[in-house]
Amino acid sequence: MAVDVGGTHLRIAMVDSGGTILAQSKERVGAEREPRKFFADLAASIRKRAGARLSELAGIGLGLPGICDQKKGIVHQLPHYPEWQDIPAAAWMREEFVCPILLDNDANMAAAGEHWMGAARGLKNFWMLTLGTGIGGGLFLNGELWRGESGFAGEVGHMTVVVNGRLCPCGKRGCWEMYAASHAASTAASGGATIEEWARAADKGDKAAQKFWREYGSYLGEGIANLALITDVEHYILGGGISNAASHFLKEALTSIRKKVYTKLAERMVVHPSTLKENSNLLGCALSVFKL
Amino acid sequence: MAVDVGGTHLRIAMVDSGGTILAQSKERVGAEREPRKFFADLAASIRKRAGARLSELAGIGLGLPGICDQKKGIVHQLPHYPEWQDIPAAAWMREEFVCPILLDNDANMAAAGEHWMGAARGLKNFWMLTLGTGIGGGLFLNGELWRGESGFAGEVGHMTVVVNGRLCPCGKRGCWEMYAASHAASTAASGGATIEEWARAADKGDKAAQKFWREYGSYLGEGIANLALITDVEHYILGGGISNAASHFLKEALTSIRKKVYTKLAERMVVHPSTLKENSNLLGCALSVFKL
Repeated sequence: MAVDVGGTHLRIAMVDSGGTILAQSKERVGAEREPRKFFADLAASIRKRAGARLSELAGIGLGLPGICDQKKGIVHQLPHYPEWQDIPAAAWMREEFVCPILLDNDANMAAAGEHWMGAARGLKNFWMLTLGTGIGGGLFLNGELWRGESGFAGEVGHMTVVVNGRLCPCGKRGCWEMYAASHAASTAASGGATIEEWARAADKGDKAAQKFWREYGSYLGEGIANLALITDVEHYILGGGISNAASHFLKEALTSIRKKVYTKLAERMVVHPSTLKENSNLLGCALSVFKL
Repeated sequence: MAVDVGGTHLRIAMVDSGGTILAQSKERVGAEREPRKFFADLAASIRKRAGARLSELAGIGLGLPGICDQKKGIVHQLPHYPEWQDIPAAAWMREEFVCPILLDNDANMAAAGEHWMGAARGLKNFWMLTLGTGIGGGLFLNGELWRGESGFAGEVGHMTVVVNGRLCPCGKRGCWEMYAASHAASTAASGGATIEEWARAADKGDKAAQKFWREYGSYLGEGIANLALITDVEHYILGGGISNAASHFLKEALTSIRKKVYTKLAERMVVHPSTLKENSNLLGCALSVFKL
């Protein structure tokens, strides 16, 4: 059973060991975010979805949008759930189920999913970037996820690209995700339009919207160029809801990358949208179970 | 024989397999930068330093300030020697010597040297940052240098920290090394003072100089925070000439890091000057030979 915990929605899917999604559901996350209650509700939802097949479950994998300790099964911080601090989520879930419980940052899960069944199949090294409310990063090096020394690697959304720039909800200034995630729409020039509205307007040929996306692409490229200069990884896979608007910003992102990266590296770089789309996270969650 | 090719100086040292520097010399790099002639002169210098012990040499290791293909022994680009492009330096040196010839980026060599004999002994993961004319980066992951897919990893000096910021000699804007390497002294506020002059003035208690170094430290910290968020590596070793002024900027750098990095990660981070100082690169060059 794969569980994609988002900022506003929760998706639960039953996935077989061949990577086929047998059934899935999507529900709004209610106002109830008290963590103990949240996981009790989640356990009830999983039971309901599993039905008679509960005893067949090989395990439950959870992808969460924040800082997780994958080894200990602890959720340290979730920006969308500020009241959560060091939640022993895996231990709580183990009180409800006999099968193994695994959890990890959603961008790591998405990277693993793309490596298993998507655009990163066969790649030894790549960056998975999830473009949504923020920017998540999952990094594969030598065929494996690089989680870093404390499990925090890939927190690329809070890399500074403009010292003393726009104020991020995290309290710092100039974070990449203020320019290249849905926060990009939170400027005065956006006049209250959301990133989804900018996408729809650009689809209809709106000039202001196309300009918005060119600027978005330029900032996206600046950050990807930084990742390339630092890690020298050649493949970048774009996931998350905003990647659906790639036709409006990808060209500008590539131009921006070519301006910032050594020609020899830029020539080898490949940046493209995820092939699994919103399912990469779910498939990574499933894989975390089947890999045990 | 270890050769540290700098922007203005060349250092040649004979090092034994225990990491002891037996003899070393430093000479100015002359106006002669035509690459074929440069390496012919270098070969003559090495012969002269080796003297009667030439036949005992286990090999020659070269650390160069730029983009190198360590496997092929090619120097792709050196910012200080703009006329050099894709120089087959190892092959040229092999025409002069029978022993193995190895070359790599100087920050990678310095990282290997610190790992062998210096501040990074026993560390599996760390960043070596060389603070000089630019900022070089050498990254150890899982006990080995991570060179990236094309050998370009660690080009941290050209990471953008201020989109549309100061113009870098590389042609791009807002590169980290415009704020946290000797270029930091090239602003109007610096009034023509060099970074060495700022260091001497701060040593004497000059208030303006102390302010200069606090700003320097703040920018240094912004970039280190980015590296920590992206790679989740805990140890940062500062080498290069500017690291000698660490007492003037390290505190501010740490403050800046703590502002930008998750508390749990910041608490584990260690940032300190190299213990081998200017010899880390030479020792890395020597190690590249002894590791064969």
